[in-house]
Amino acid sequence: MSKFMEKALEQANLAAKRGEVPVGAVIVQNGEIIASAGNRTIEDKDPTAHAEVLALREAALTLGNERLSECDLYVTLEPCTMCAGAISFARIRRLYFGAEDHKGGAVENGVRFFSDPSCHHCPDVYTGMSAGESTRILKEFFKERR
Amino acid sequence: MSKFMEKALEQANLAAKRGEVPVGAVIVQNGEIIASAGNRTIEDKDPTAHAEVLALREAALTLGNERLSECDLYVTLEPCTMCAGAISFARIRRLYFGAEDHKGGAVENGVRFFSDPSCHHCPDVYTGMSAGESTRILKEFFKERR
Repeated sequence: MSKFMEKALEQANLAAKRGEVPVGAVIVQNGEIIASAGNRTIEDKDPTAHAEVLALREAALTLGNERLSECDLYVTLEPCTMCAGAISFARIRRLYFGAEDHKGGAVENGVRFFSDPSCHHCPDVYTGMSAGESTRILKEFFKERR
Repeated sequence: MSKFMEKALEQANLAAKRGEVPVGAVIVQNGEIIASAGNRTIEDKDPTAHAEVLALREAALTLGNERLSECDLYVTLEPCTMCAGAISFARIRRLYFGAEDHKGGAVENGVRFFSDPSCHHCPDVYTGMSAGESTRILKEFFKERR
């Protein structure tokens, strides 16, 4: 397991403990984590507070630059349409995601944004890393809430 | 001209003065503006700081709820993929946008997110309001920067 995806899974588990949909993300530059976050939409009363958006905002603030061209993003679940758009704007170099999201994903599913002509920057995409563990955390979360 | 779109155009003009791409947005509930913003990606060092995202975040914080089901969004330019996703998550009731964005839009152009099966909430969409003035502000901004 990648140590970076392991850190993203830690963020997903922390999100679950806060009652948020357990998705976690970290951003890496030169082998160092410069930002990490889990979902906070309920806690922050912010519909845009997905793990990816929060991590992108933190990384851009840390670097003092809204373009993260040398940065890689690790996220436990396939990004949604909003997050795929944000990843493109932030000029993320490589995207690693865990489980596919057949219902809400926008990379391999849904609008497949990075393959659309209206996408002006596309990261290299690597999928499936720790997909089993990512799915397990999500399933457990929703099972407890049924 | 709708008074709300006029306020969105004011935000676009203010954004231009700050050196930001001039797009403005306001959010209206019960006939009152509860949030307004122009682009701030450069000033805030935030790749997600589009007018729509900032207005959605402000409105959600003001109402103490990440769902804005009774709210309408007025924006001077067709929302991009990221913003269309955010508008859907925020459960915006009606979306009014000015000019079409043939290059980066995601409502009538690009991925047409609200028509995609992976979009789980779609606002009613009204287009073309003050489109000429919205386009004029954008064209002037980019002409000065050439």
